[in-house]
Amino acid sequence: MFEARVLEKLKKNENNFISGEKLSEDLGVSRTSVWKYINALKDAGYNIESVSKKGYRLIYSQDLLNEFEIGYNLKTNILGKHIHYMETVDSTNIYARNMAIDGALEGTVVIADAQITGRGRLGRSWSSAAKKGIWMSVVLRPGISPEEVQIITIGASVAVVKAIFTVTGIRAGIKWPNDIILEGKKLCGILTEMNSEIERVNFLILGIGINVNHNPEDFPEDIRSIATSLKIFSENNFNNNVKLFTRSDIIKELLFELENLYIKINKGDLKEIIDEWKEYSVTLGKHVKVLYRSAEYSGIAEDIKEDGRLIVNCEDGIVREIFSGEVSVRGVLGYS
Amino acid sequence: MFEARVLEKLKKNENNFISGEKLSEDLGVSRTSVWKYINALKDAGYNIESVSKKGYRLIYSQDLLNEFEIGYNLKTNILGKHIHYMETVDSTNIYARNMAIDGALEGTVVIADAQITGRGRLGRSWSSAAKKGIWMSVVLRPGISPEEVQIITIGASVAVVKAIFTVTGIRAGIKWPNDIILEGKKLCGILTEMNSEIERVNFLILGIGINVNHNPEDFPEDIRSIATSLKIFSENNFNNNVKLFTRSDIIKELLFELENLYIKINKGDLKEIIDEWKEYSVTLGKHVKVLYRSAEYSGIAEDIKEDGRLIVNCEDGIVREIFSGEVSVRGVLGYS
Repeated sequence: MFEARVLEKLKKNENNFISGEKLSEDLGVSRTSVWKYINALKDAGYNIESVSKKGYRLIYSQDLLNEFEIGYNLKTNILGKHIHYMETVDSTNIYARNMAIDGALEGTVVIADAQITGRGRLGRSWSSAAKKGIWMSVVLRPGISPEEVQIITIGASVAVVKAIFTVTGIRAGIKWPNDIILEGKKLCGILTEMNSEIERVNFLILGIGINVNHNPEDFPEDIRSIATSLKIFSENNFNNNVKLFTRSDIIKELLFELENLYIKINKGDLKEIIDEWKEYSVTLGKHVKVLYRSAEYSGIAEDIKEDGRLIVNCEDGIVREIFSGEVSVRGVLGYS
Repeated sequence: MFEARVLEKLKKNENNFISGEKLSEDLGVSRTSVWKYINALKDAGYNIESVSKKGYRLIYSQDLLNEFEIGYNLKTNILGKHIHYMETVDSTNIYARNMAIDGALEGTVVIADAQITGRGRLGRSWSSAAKKGIWMSVVLRPGISPEEVQIITIGASVAVVKAIFTVTGIRAGIKWPNDIILEGKKLCGILTEMNSEIERVNFLILGIGINVNHNPEDFPEDIRSIATSLKIFSENNFNNNVKLFTRSDIIKELLFELENLYIKINKGDLKEIIDEWKEYSVTLGKHVKVLYRSAEYSGIAEDIKEDGRLIVNCEDGIVREIFSGEVSVRGVLGYS
C-alpha cells in the first residue's frame, strides 16, 4: 500500500515540505503515481499542501479517522490488518457480520465515524454521534464453544479500560459483565454477537462503542444523565484546557490490548484475564440487584469465576452464580 | 391462497373430474382465474388432466414435494405457516439464515428437493441426493440464552423419531446428542445454527436432513457403509413390496412434533423432553468413547441431564459431564 508509505514520509516531515521527486525516488514509483497517492490521501481527509518547486507538506489534522491513520504504527499482527473505515454505516456490527458471512478474515476491523442505527445489547439502540466516538467491530474466529464466549467479552472490557488509561491517563471501571463506567456513568458498551453451532463458534463479532469527544449536548436528552465521555470527564476533573482526544490513538492501543487478550484466550490463560478484570471492577464487594427474566435478587457481589459468572451472596441466604441477566450496582447508573 | 383451495377440491375428487364451472362457483372466482390456478398447480408438479366438457382431474403423483403439498392438512399453528420450497438450493440452512437476517418470521420453513452444498456439523458436507430425502431448515426465535439451545437440538431428534414412527412404523434410535440411527447406520442428521448475543439467542436455524427413499447407490461410495434410508431399511426388513415413502407426510408430522416440542420448551417442560429422548436413546447404558479436543475418554454413558449434558462414568473412575464433543457408541457407526 503505497499511500501508507507516502503518508509515513509526510508524517516524518510534518509541517515541512518534501519534494515529489524525493518521494518518487524513495518509493521507487513515478512522479505521476506519487501525485495519485497524494490525491488518495487528500480524499481520505488529510490536509496536504502542494506548492510547486517545494513539493508536499502535511498539515496537522485534529482527530482524523481513516484506515491509514489506524494502520500507521499499529503494533498488532492479527487485529486490524484488514481495516474497513466508512464515514457512515448503519451499524458496524451488522456490516462486520455480513463480511464474516462472506468469509472475512479473523481480525478484520470495521470502523465508522458515524452509525445510523447503532445497537446495544438486547436490541437496544446505541447513540453514536458523528466523529465523537469510537464505533467499531472486530471479526474473530476463535476455536471455542458458545459457552466460552463470555470470557472474551469480559476480557474485552479489560482491554478497553487499559487502552484508555494508557492513552489518556483516565482510569475507568467495569460493571459486570462489561460496561465501562466513569463517575457512575456509561463511557463504553460492548456488544458481542456470534454465529455458532452447539459446540463451535463459527465467528464472533466484538462491537465496541466508546464515547470520546462528546459534549453533554452530543448525547440524546434521555441518556444525558447516564452517559459520559472522556472529554466530559477531563473537563470536570482536569483544570487545564482540554484538547480533543485522538480517537485513532485509542483505537490502535485498543487493538493491541485486544490482541494480547486474544492470545491469552487461545492459550487458556483465563485466570490472568479475570485477575485484571477484578482490578478494574466496580462490582465486586458492592451491593447489587440482579434481574433475570421475571426473578429479582439482591445481595453482595462476591467474586467472578473463570467462565465469567458473577457470584452473588443473596439476601435470602442463597449464593447464586449469575451467567446472564441485568445487574445493577449501588453507586453506579441504573441502580435504584 | 386460491391454489391451495383448488388443490383441496381436486384432492377430494382424486381421479374424478370436477368441472371448471363448479370450481369457479365453489371458490367464487372467475373461470379464467380457475384456469390460472390450475396452471400454477401444474407448474408446481401436479399431474392435472383437463378434458373439455368434463373439467379437471388430479392424477395421483408419487411423493411430490412443494409448498401446497406440505401445507395441505398441516396441523400446526406456527411452524410451516411460511413454507419456502425450492427444487434446488445451495443449503437450506444458509438460505434460512439469510431469510432470518432479513427478518423472516418464526416458524418459516425452507425446504428443497436437492441441496448442492448441504452441510453437517462442524463444517462437514452432507450428501443430499435429489428427491430422495427431506432437506429442510426451520427458523425459530425462542426467548432463551445460548447455553439453553442444546435442549432444542436434543428435542428435535425426538420429534424426528416420533414423526418417522407415526408415518412409517419404523422405530429409529438416537445417538447422543441428536444423530438418528437405524441398524447402526445414520438415517438423519440435525444441524443447529444460531445467531446470538451472550445472553440471548436472536434466531436459531434448525436444519434437518432425513434419508428417505435412497437406494444404496444414491449415497456416495465413501458413506455407503455408514448411511441408511427408510427405504433401505424397509427392503431389508419387510418382505412385502416396498413402495416409496411420501416425504410430505413425514414433513407434516415432523412439523407437528417440532411444534409440540417448541411449546414444551417455551413452557419449560424440559423433563418431558429428556424422558422421551431416553426412550429412543441408543446411547444410555452403552460403552462410549468421547473425543473432546485433544482428550479422549471412554466409559459407560449413564444418564442425560436436563440441559442435555451426557453423564459418562469413565474408566479412570471420574464421572464426566459431556456438553460437546464426539461421542461414539459401541454397536453404532463410528465406534472402533
